Amino acid sequence: MGRWEPDARERLVRAALDLFAEQGYDNTTVAKIAERAGLTKSTFFRYFPDKREVLAAGQDTLRELIEEGISAAPATATPLATVSAALEAAAEAFTPERRDLGEKMRAAIAGSKELQERDALKRLGLTSAIADALENRGVDEVTASLAADIGVLALKRAQFYWSQSTNQKTFRELALRSLDELRATSIALR
Amino acid sequence: MGRWEPDARERLVRAALDLFAEQGYDNTTVAKIAERAGLTKSTFFRYFPDKREVLAAGQDTLRELIEEGISAAPATATPLATVSAALEAAAEAFTPERRDLGEKMRAAIAGSKELQERDALKRLGLTSAIADALENRGVDEVTASLAADIGVLALKRAQFYWSQSTNQKTFRELALRSLDELRATSIALR
Repeated sequence: MGRWEPDARERLVRAALDLFAEQGYDNTTVAKIAERAGLTKSTFFRYFPDKREVLAAGQDTLRELIEEGISAAPATATPLATVSAALEAAAEAFTPERRDLGEKMRAAIAGSKELQERDALKRLGLTSAIADALENRGVDEVTASLAADIGVLALKRAQFYWSQSTNQKTFRELALRSLDELRATSIALR
Repeated sequence: MGRWEPDARERLVRAALDLFAEQGYDNTTVAKIAERAGLTKSTFFRYFPDKREVLAAGQDTLRELIEEGISAAPATATPLATVSAALEAAAEAFTPERRDLGEKMRAAIAGSKELQERDALKRLGLTSAIADALENRGVDEVTASLAADIGVLALKRAQFYWSQSTNQKTFRELALRSLDELRATSIALR
């Protein structure tokens, strides 16, 4: 199976996000999502355990890309340079065709407390993944944890900017710019 | 009602944490928790909507203390000095009599994915509260977000050290030391 299972999986995600926007998250059933995608409920459950998990679509891919980016970084790279390599690798998942998905996802999250929790947990999972990967490279735990936090904050900011339809920059540019901004801020903090 | 509702509420928390440790979180019912505390199920539900929320005990108090600490900080305090004031205020909640509760809570969290999620969301709630309070003081959003992150990381580390029975330092000392360590790390990050 390809990384993004482009067909059924992406159709289900799009259908779900459209329905969340049209009628709210709470009023959307799995049956409705499957119907809108032109698929069966059992196909839905092949991809997702429940409707909340639609939001996690791509999360595993993102983590894999990040972990690959970190392993590929030179051994001499500083912790933040390693995080930067992770973000550049992650940028691969944010293709121009997916920009509208990002916008819909953001709208759905804004409208549902349950999705906000799911989103928060997703970010925490990524933070741990980055911190663990840095520790495996010999970075001490405090630095790894802080660098991971900064990386995920940069990712979050980049996702926010990227999902705005008026924004025409690539995800990579936005992620690196956000990271630079956070790095400058962390150095200026007293 | 006092801040910590010391009697029924704290008895329920202790009973729940003991049962989580003895028989696991999944196998512990609200009825058993109430019974162990010598109280009724309906008393339990006056304090907590469900057993997971036992973990959130003290969360509102902690947020209030943090917010009070931030408002009481001098207007000229830097963002991290303000966070430091917040941690000193938060330390009030971590009295010597509660040290064993911290240890039990940590054990319960380690043993249950559901409690790990609850704990993660609790920390995110505190992060937003600190970031919002800093923004209200005129700190820009990026700095506020990063300073709040560092503050909650310091709190988390202090809680970890404090809950170890071999540790005899006060929570205040542990929190300020953790914050100093994170501040030094953030300055050293490149």
